Amino acid sequence: MPVDNTQKPNPIYPINGITIGIGQAGVRYTNRNDITVFKVTGQTALVSTQNQFVAAPVQVAREHHQKSCPQFLLINTGNANAASGQDGIDRARQTCQALMDKAATKGLTDSTDITMVLPFSTGVIGEVLPSQKIIDSLDTVLDNLSADNWEQASVAIMTTDTTPKIASEKIELQTAGQTISYHATGISKGAGMIRPNMATMLAFVATDANIEATLLQKMLTQLTNQTFNKITIDGDTSTNDCCVLIATGTASDKCIDSEDDEHYLAVYQMLERIFLRLATLIVRDGEGASKFITVKVTGGKTSEDCAKVAYSVAHSPLVKTAFFASDPNWGRIVASVGNAGVAIDQNQVSVSIDEVNICQRGALASTYSEEQGAKAMMRDEITVHIDLGQGTASDTVYTCDLSHDYVSINADYRS
Amino acid sequence: MPVDNTQKPNPIYPINGITIGIGQAGVRYTNRNDITVFKVTGQTALVSTQNQFVAAPVQVAREHHQKSCPQFLLINTGNANAASGQDGIDRARQTCQALMDKAATKGLTDSTDITMVLPFSTGVIGEVLPSQKIIDSLDTVLDNLSADNWEQASVAIMTTDTTPKIASEKIELQTAGQTISYHATGISKGAGMIRPNMATMLAFVATDANIEATLLQKMLTQLTNQTFNKITIDGDTSTNDCCVLIATGTASDKCIDSEDDEHYLAVYQMLERIFLRLATLIVRDGEGASKFITVKVTGGKTSEDCAKVAYSVAHSPLVKTAFFASDPNWGRIVASVGNAGVAIDQNQVSVSIDEVNICQRGALASTYSEEQGAKAMMRDEITVHIDLGQGTASDTVYTCDLSHDYVSINADYRS
Repeated sequence: MPVDNTQKPNPIYPINGITIGIGQAGVRYTNRNDITVFKVTGQTALVSTQNQFVAAPVQVAREHHQKSCPQFLLINTGNANAASGQDGIDRARQTCQALMDKAATKGLTDSTDITMVLPFSTGVIGEVLPSQKIIDSLDTVLDNLSADNWEQASVAIMTTDTTPKIASEKIELQTAGQTISYHATGISKGAGMIRPNMATMLAFVATDANIEATLLQKMLTQLTNQTFNKITIDGDTSTNDCCVLIATGTASDKCIDSEDDEHYLAVYQMLERIFLRLATLIVRDGEGASKFITVKVTGGKTSEDCAKVAYSVAHSPLVKTAFFASDPNWGRIVASVGNAGVAIDQNQVSVSIDEVNICQRGALASTYSEEQGAKAMMRDEITVHIDLGQGTASDTVYTCDLSHDYVSINADYRS
Repeated sequence: MPVDNTQKPNPIYPINGITIGIGQAGVRYTNRNDITVFKVTGQTALVSTQNQFVAAPVQVAREHHQKSCPQFLLINTGNANAASGQDGIDRARQTCQALMDKAATKGLTDSTDITMVLPFSTGVIGEVLPSQKIIDSLDTVLDNLSADNWEQASVAIMTTDTTPKIASEKIELQTAGQTISYHATGISKGAGMIRPNMATMLAFVATDANIEATLLQKMLTQLTNQTFNKITIDGDTSTNDCCVLIATGTASDKCIDSEDDEHYLAVYQMLERIFLRLATLIVRDGEGASKFITVKVTGGKTSEDCAKVAYSVAHSPLVKTAFFASDPNWGRIVASVGNAGVAIDQNQVSVSIDEVNICQRGALASTYSEEQGAKAMMRDEITVHIDLGQGTASDTVYTCDLSHDYVSINADYRS
């Protein structure tokens, strides 16, 4: 059972300049939508996996993004088209070309340049992409392009996800006596194989803010580092992860072209809330997750040290099974702190679970009782706070527990 | 169910110069032996955990080993005496002092210097060591010192182990017309939280070879790097791991004092077989393990690169659950190869499982069939061979699958 707190936003704001089409190609699943097309305007920024095995669609998307300003995003679920060699790249390109040809025929674009399509795939690695099935579905998909399809898209991109992931927000800002309404809406997918650096995760976020292209790319990099790259489920990373941020510019002629712009900070923070929500929804839906765990490390010499410690704790199968069992086994936590590859003084390290101070300067806290620890561990949402006692830096990561269901899901499912 | 192939050696050679006493202190378990004392002669080498949280007994053992030539090893199971602060160190020292005092009283030593004892603890982290219970057991333990207690000791040091781990061997070498019989016998414990760098593992190996102290320490470091540091179960490392190698020198007056000695290589290789056996027995007994997996990486630029790739594969929960499910999900393998932090060319990478060539130069091998892959994955012992296609270096690590039982064992047990 995934951790709760996954209610969808209300309302879900459409983003002026974006329409979305949905369809059923039968790539792997035969009883649900598995194709999503975004028709986009304005500026599009892209970040993609740091895995050395880069899936074919990611290779193609990177190339296309460098060459052109995207008009379409084409997403399939059920097949990752990864580890598929030149044939995989050819098939990704065929789907892009078919999309442009069909879109031109329908009067949706005046170009047939395939570099205007960014392709994305998620699903099983190492199987041949049934590109013709995708191509055959595109007429229907393009015929139902609508600004109101965000929720349907959030369902159509799912793989082992048990809930769709969607976030939406609106803010109003003043400039020269005028009010501008900025909107942002995003969807994400991912439930396992999640860790920093964009693992088996797809996210598509759009805003109607008018943001200069270079600044938009910089914002996307910062936003992913602060959100999607701070979540971890099983320490694995994927070949296909991508995150796209689109700024249609339809909210206003006023262009946000630097961090000094009067609206920059508020727009950035709106996007950060969207990104953090989409990222933590993935952890809450972690394969087999029953608990949402925040690992906060303070008192480090550098934030890099704090991140290493936080990830060491968040990745430890022993810590994660203890959380699943609601066992306040703080010894496993300190062992994983010591295992982070960071020089620490064990006599300065303190650990608490929520409000319960367990370990004080390397030894059992005098105030601690097992009953208190067990009570804190029973909760669905837990914060582990580790203070290294050697500086002022800090960092935080988000993870979940390791349950029987994780093994079942991953032993049964081809991902 | 642990992977089979754990039959004990026959005969188990006693090592002249070593006697072992066993006892029941009730540290945690009340129905089994939990205290082991080795009375040793000759030279003793020690390697210990690289975890930054160093358990109290390890701190004391390191200090004592630097100061003196050990006469006794004192091992308790059930309590790790880790993250226990100054009180933990005091308690470890109290047990050492009591051992020396009682041994002197019994005429087993003419010293009461506590630095002649190396203490070792394994079990739950963060609980107070019941040192008085240990002290109270020592009279009985010292009264049953015997050269033939290796097998009993292999049982007395267990924690979550399901089988005792013991290895023994004899070789005969010639020198100047004489035959020298060299023996080596060792025991180990460990079943989870195992990874390179001496994680939750204790091993005690003795030989009657006569080996110079500095050389012995160098041999121990090499032996652990090639064996215990090549096994991994869940990627966690422990606060308490230690490995001890004793050379009693009773086989011969002839001292092996350099790698150029005519007997060095054969004795080293005998010890390497003992160490590798004790290390792979730990993997076979990995918590919940149903399969023994060898991950062999060849064709790397450096052996460090190969080790990184091998560990990335061996640590991946997604790969490990696929092995548990006998699912030839090679996509997960290549994703974990790409995730190792090593620069690779994905179009040069090939992967096989046993004799089945699955991935050839980054894409599905033309000869591969899912039936072949599934058949290979059904086996209890599997070798994954990854060739990076970029050099001549190689490395190998040993691991097991990730099963429901792993979660059960670690959710239920305090370790």
